[in-house]
Amino acid sequence: MTVFEMIIKGDIPSTKIYEDDSVIAILDIAPRAKGHTLVISKNVYPTIEEVPLDVLSHMMEIVKKVDKKMRLALKADGTNVIINNSPASGQEVPHLHIHVIPRFKDDGISFFPPALKYEENEAKEYGEKLKI
Amino acid sequence: MTVFEMIIKGDIPSTKIYEDDSVIAILDIAPRAKGHTLVISKNVYPTIEEVPLDVLSHMMEIVKKVDKKMRLALKADGTNVIINNSPASGQEVPHLHIHVIPRFKDDGISFFPPALKYEENEAKEYGEKLKI
Repeated sequence: MTVFEMIIKGDIPSTKIYEDDSVIAILDIAPRAKGHTLVISKNVYPTIEEVPLDVLSHMMEIVKKVDKKMRLALKADGTNVIINNSPASGQEVPHLHIHVIPRFKDDGISFFPPALKYEENEAKEYGEKLKI
Repeated sequence: MTVFEMIIKGDIPSTKIYEDDSVIAILDIAPRAKGHTLVISKNVYPTIEEVPLDVLSHMMEIVKKVDKKMRLALKADGTNVIINNSPASGQEVPHLHIHVIPRFKDDGISFFPPALKYEENEAKEYGEKLKI
């Protein structure tokens, strides 16, 4: 059982800001900015690979509400919306959750590492590999 | 006109991996990992605040396909899916786009800054403010 399942069952306390039949939104206990929220599917899907599109869409509907609330209630200037899929990407709980992080002008938080550069033709090669 | 509108019109070259009536997916020219892709709405919405839910859901459908393709074609172990909403959050082009970044075990990339801690009762206060 994931820690989020225990939170959903009420066996572990959490600071809940939203709940419906299929989704819960709680404060992250290790916030990258105060107010950092997790939108969690009640059914357990490890990553976006496994989640059905209708569930993901509903999660994004709640993400939109959280983003709006952060702008209104915290006077946030913006948000980062982040899904880490798999441990290799930094996912700590194998139970799909969407991070919504309130951001403020000049808050000093930096997420993106430095950009890389493609060698000649390399972008084209990656483009060919990834073509859908 | 945003740089993405110019790319969509074909006035600026890009490495395209997917296109339909409402969405385009291209390689980011400043990749955080090689293969870093942007899923872009053809209609211009600055952030998730303005985008209609059906458009956002369709964008997430394409994100799911890109995630799958990265695992298959690049043998990625996972992905980060990131939406930066507003300049305060690191958004560089005011035209909604979703980053999909392929990740590999021990690739050394780090996105999340160190976690903060809530003072006593502070989490409860944030929870009250953000309640939806």
